[in-house]
Amino acid sequence: MSLASWRSPLARALHRNRSLVYSRYLQLATVRSDGRPANRTVVFRGFLEETNQLQFVTDARSQKVEQIEHISAAEACWYFPNTREQFRLAGQLTLVPANCPHADLLAARQRLWQALSDPARTQFAWADPGQPRNDDVGFAVPSPDATTPLPTFCLLLLDPDRVDHLELRGDPQNRGLYHRDAAGNWSMQAVNP
Amino acid sequence: MSLASWRSPLARALHRNRSLVYSRYLQLATVRSDGRPANRTVVFRGFLEETNQLQFVTDARSQKVEQIEHISAAEACWYFPNTREQFRLAGQLTLVPANCPHADLLAARQRLWQALSDPARTQFAWADPGQPRNDDVGFAVPSPDATTPLPTFCLLLLDPDRVDHLELRGDPQNRGLYHRDAAGNWSMQAVNP
Repeated sequence: MSLASWRSPLARALHRNRSLVYSRYLQLATVRSDGRPANRTVVFRGFLEETNQLQFVTDARSQKVEQIEHISAAEACWYFPNTREQFRLAGQLTLVPANCPHADLLAARQRLWQALSDPARTQFAWADPGQPRNDDVGFAVPSPDATTPLPTFCLLLLDPDRVDHLELRGDPQNRGLYHRDAAGNWSMQAVNP
Repeated sequence: MSLASWRSPLARALHRNRSLVYSRYLQLATVRSDGRPANRTVVFRGFLEETNQLQFVTDARSQKVEQIEHISAAEACWYFPNTREQFRLAGQLTLVPANCPHADLLAARQRLWQALSDPARTQFAWADPGQPRNDDVGFAVPSPDATTPLPTFCLLLLDPDRVDHLELRGDPQNRGLYHRDAAGNWSMQAVNP
């Protein structure tokens, strides 16, 4: 595979904003089964090797898992404060749960688990997210094994087919629309901001 | 009307993050007419007087206007870096265009126009957003009148009916779900993060 043409400006934005830990946070929009949108902050965990797919992690018990089974389309919105630019990445989500049949994706899932901090791994052993809180149970759990992911741990992949890059600096601002054609090739068109 | 119970923690977050100009930026998710989600950064412009509705501005020619006509449901995701907390605000959008029949909403639209900077107002006179760029036309426009909004200028209101507040600080983290009932009263339930 070849690197998509939007990877270069995105890599530059990540580099120029690296002083901000939250420059790796972005907002992922999906659609609920009743047709309403959902939107939450996720952490960018790099690209899946040899692909243009963004990696995130999620809990198998989270609402977004159910939403993805219904509609896999998503749009991530990523704002970089230092350079004042925005990437909107639209595409399809793929969930990689514990019982995923693809060995290479399971290996990627395991790599991400091993790269997490101990507190981050422990959250996957906590009580069901979104259920009424009961501090008597649910949070006093031992640290999970650092090698083998818990069954609740999922890798989540976003495969963009359209990227909208807006640079707020400049008058007028710069905006480029990247499209992937059926053959998998990317092209870019400069558009009005 | 009474202030919704989530207004207090949101006001606190805005205050504690006021050193960051981009703490007033949030991501607004809507649904496209083909059922795919859309997501973009918008700027919070305060609350509509005497309501719990968030104010934004938008261009009548932007894609979100068409999306809102189709499905008015939206979810805003607002991450505050200094305090490491997230608000997810789900509800209905109302667009206030130049021909809106409600005098009070038109007055609010005009107030927001007048509060904009001159460069921000000028963008509403630029060539059609999202169309192929042509620098020969479209950007060399005079500053619009500062009192009367251009026809392209719209007020956009988000009326939340559900707010999910997550504080990442703390072990375990704190998460509260605010719901509005049919009578318009808000209640809060602490849930597992």
